[in-house]
Amino acid sequence: MDLKECGYSLANRKQMRKKSIHPCQSTDKDVIKEAHAENVMTNLSNAYASDLLPSKEGEDLTKCFLLRVVNILLHYIEKTFDDKSKILDFHHPHQLLEGLDGFDLELSDHPESLEQLLVDCTDTLKYGVKTGHPRYFNQLSSGLDVIGLAGEWLTATANTNMFTYEIAPVFTVMETVLLKKMCGIIGWRETEADGIFSPGGSISNLYGILVARYKQYPEIKARGMAVLPCIVLFVSEQGHYSIKKAAATLGIGTDNVIEVKCDERGKMIPAELEKNILQAKRKGQTPFCVVATAGSTVFGAFDPLHDIADICETHKLWMHVDGLLGACNQMQAEYLFQPDKVYNINFDTGDKTIQCGRHVDVFKLWLMWKAKGTYGFEVQIDRYMELAKYFYKVLKKKDNFKLVFDAEPEFTNVCFWYFPPRLKHIPKSFERDQELQKIAPKIKAQMIVEGTAMLSYQPCGDKVNFFRMVFSNPATRQTDVDYLIDEIQRLGKDL
Amino acid sequence: MDLKECGYSLANRKQMRKKSIHPCQSTDKDVIKEAHAENVMTNLSNAYASDLLPSKEGEDLTKCFLLRVVNILLHYIEKTFDDKSKILDFHHPHQLLEGLDGFDLELSDHPESLEQLLVDCTDTLKYGVKTGHPRYFNQLSSGLDVIGLAGEWLTATANTNMFTYEIAPVFTVMETVLLKKMCGIIGWRETEADGIFSPGGSISNLYGILVARYKQYPEIKARGMAVLPCIVLFVSEQGHYSIKKAAATLGIGTDNVIEVKCDERGKMIPAELEKNILQAKRKGQTPFCVVATAGSTVFGAFDPLHDIADICETHKLWMHVDGLLGACNQMQAEYLFQPDKVYNINFDTGDKTIQCGRHVDVFKLWLMWKAKGTYGFEVQIDRYMELAKYFYKVLKKKDNFKLVFDAEPEFTNVCFWYFPPRLKHIPKSFERDQELQKIAPKIKAQMIVEGTAMLSYQPCGDKVNFFRMVFSNPATRQTDVDYLIDEIQRLGKDL
Repeated sequence: MDLKECGYSLANRKQMRKKSIHPCQSTDKDVIKEAHAENVMTNLSNAYASDLLPSKEGEDLTKCFLLRVVNILLHYIEKTFDDKSKILDFHHPHQLLEGLDGFDLELSDHPESLEQLLVDCTDTLKYGVKTGHPRYFNQLSSGLDVIGLAGEWLTATANTNMFTYEIAPVFTVMETVLLKKMCGIIGWRETEADGIFSPGGSISNLYGILVARYKQYPEIKARGMAVLPCIVLFVSEQGHYSIKKAAATLGIGTDNVIEVKCDERGKMIPAELEKNILQAKRKGQTPFCVVATAGSTVFGAFDPLHDIADICETHKLWMHVDGLLGACNQMQAEYLFQPDKVYNINFDTGDKTIQCGRHVDVFKLWLMWKAKGTYGFEVQIDRYMELAKYFYKVLKKKDNFKLVFDAEPEFTNVCFWYFPPRLKHIPKSFERDQELQKIAPKIKAQMIVEGTAMLSYQPCGDKVNFFRMVFSNPATRQTDVDYLIDEIQRLGKDL
Repeated sequence: MDLKECGYSLANRKQMRKKSIHPCQSTDKDVIKEAHAENVMTNLSNAYASDLLPSKEGEDLTKCFLLRVVNILLHYIEKTFDDKSKILDFHHPHQLLEGLDGFDLELSDHPESLEQLLVDCTDTLKYGVKTGHPRYFNQLSSGLDVIGLAGEWLTATANTNMFTYEIAPVFTVMETVLLKKMCGIIGWRETEADGIFSPGGSISNLYGILVARYKQYPEIKARGMAVLPCIVLFVSEQGHYSIKKAAATLGIGTDNVIEVKCDERGKMIPAELEKNILQAKRKGQTPFCVVATAGSTVFGAFDPLHDIADICETHKLWMHVDGLLGACNQMQAEYLFQPDKVYNINFDTGDKTIQCGRHVDVFKLWLMWKAKGTYGFEVQIDRYMELAKYFYKVLKKKDNFKLVFDAEPEFTNVCFWYFPPRLKHIPKSFERDQELQKIAPKIKAQMIVEGTAMLSYQPCGDKVNFFRMVFSNPATRQTDVDYLIDEIQRLGKDL
């Protein structure tokens, strides 16, 4: 459906109504001519938001406008999945602020026409980043799921809020059903578990620590931290930085987050945890919680959960696990589990959230689950794992790539360096690393400028900048992986 | 565009391409016949999510599926704005859980067909609540803004995250532009103000108090509440309950939130605030923050901001204002202002949020602003104010209605009781109030069952259950207001 056809289809429909004929049986030349005439009239340069519904007679215009928006979106979706399209058309912030080809971000006192809004929509997408592109690997989560997208469109249209059953009857019940299903997967029965969807992983981690604190010290809610001893919590040095943020927010303080050493794969070392707990106690601190990580941000490492659980049991500490099942979530659909019902009575109104209103996050995931089935998610995640293994094997054979640790990936993260020919044979040294440190950023910058791929990099501990590849994009195939390797070599070989 | 036409349009397009003719000039009978034939094939009972993009050749199917979803949404939007449609088709949770007419919320291991997903989408909307209906007044914010909706559809399609400029170049710059504009409106220059969009008003209030605490005690971030004196904050007894929630979350404790008395309109009494501050100091508590409310939840009351500001200045307390500009926001588009740049350096990574990833909330509001202009928002809010005044005047004349306080509304909230004839002439007494208490819930329950209107009620202090009408729905007209009054009388007269 291109722009003309949008008008055509609308106009056509109007004609059909008037003449009471079925569109697919119609061979009436006049209908099409009239449709064409009306189509011209659907130019929206003289139409404004105030002409749309709820304005009287605003119905046809509303449909035309929304269909034209959808047309822009469908075009974008088509390009997103096309590996020959650029991932982005890079510009600097000041260029966007100054206005590119008439794309004016400034807001005025007067309204723009609907036609201009459509141009704005096109431009917004034009200068954005196609996070669903097969060669977009920049974030932990990437890819555009068409079913999830449909779910979001419906959620936006339903435009309600998770306040109460009264105003979101279907969505609140769906959340119950979905959480029960998810709890079942990790082996918790309905009476043992409860949860809510929260706006992201960081807030979920904050909830985890909030619950841990409340469970140990229920008086905290009314009386505050003033009545508590100096409480401390533990997380691996590879744990997510949101744990420290949560500690700052909750009034615990970042100094009271104790980082536990990891092995070379980024897994918490249980003996180190035990040591840290005993040290803290000797210092007069009061341990209350251990945050274990199931799929760390950089390496995709899984902490040894059973060993950590044993230590928590011995020392009577709350264990919060950051991760589990995360791989099946798209951006923003986060969740939270609590291993008992303590949270139901945590806040005076009996509600479970630190928010009041809450966005409807559940429908997207519910619809995706309906569409794929549990097996479908399994297949999807298995595919990412296969791709990660494939990528690892290919890199291992290439002598200008080096893996950050040389073992089959346990999750979908693969971390590696690229060595340009001039650095390849220089043995590890401070000077060599100073040079290597610059390689990934330079390759990345050029990738962005050319819009050919997007991949993140970072240093970690004593390791200088390396690339982190994460497979979570359903559009990515082996050919894209091969392409990425070639692209890194092309952009890096002369650096 | 009905379902058949969706297939028709798609098929038609395919034909057009093949034959290189313009749709609107085509009069070829065969095209339409073939289109009809292809249309039949677009039944999606044998198609699955795995056939959609990024699947090879998934493009046409993806468009057809999404257009059919949009068709369902357009139909829903049409009904939403139709005052003759029901707001909801009420069912109990157990009915939804048991499955209504084949609407099965349970999730299975196996995928459903795309055709079944479309039925699920239809059912989800069918059993939901039309929050954009002209007679939906249930929440502080209501109404469906078509431009905002288009903005949400685009946001979902762009599917990115406010992490960084790198992956959300347009949206991050838009946020800067929009916040600058909003700061300008309340008279803050760019260098004086900063802010972010947060997932709702409660989180915004949490941020407000977090900033107040950090400003007074920067050591809190690293060392926690343990190093602070017993800090207390003040909010009016009509302030939002999220302040207490925030105090619980932040480790301040709900006991350390001191409620300041209000006048009969629900405004904080400055002399009471002063008294409370002095009392707290005498008790050895350390005041650090006053939360003023601009548009309270129940009465829409504005605290005397200037008087409170003077008191805060005298006592060197941070002043946080909950509200400002809120009326122009749709659900979920919340924001936060800070009167200086302290927050920029609040967290170690230099980011401003307690989240890591953040939903793109800005585009919807940006597009609405483009569409309406600042004047358009003014007009819209003025209209709500007019409606509130109209409603007040009509109620004042009706002798079976009584206003909770008898003065022209200052904002868009109007609170009132309905007295059935049997209670009308009984003077105020405990027994009368016991009866009156039951009236609003009964009327509301019947409204929901019949789906004719939705309106909230609550008790407040010594006042038994009263209705709270809030105007924030762009679809509401005077006739809907008249309808509501008649409806309350119809449902309440024999109670």
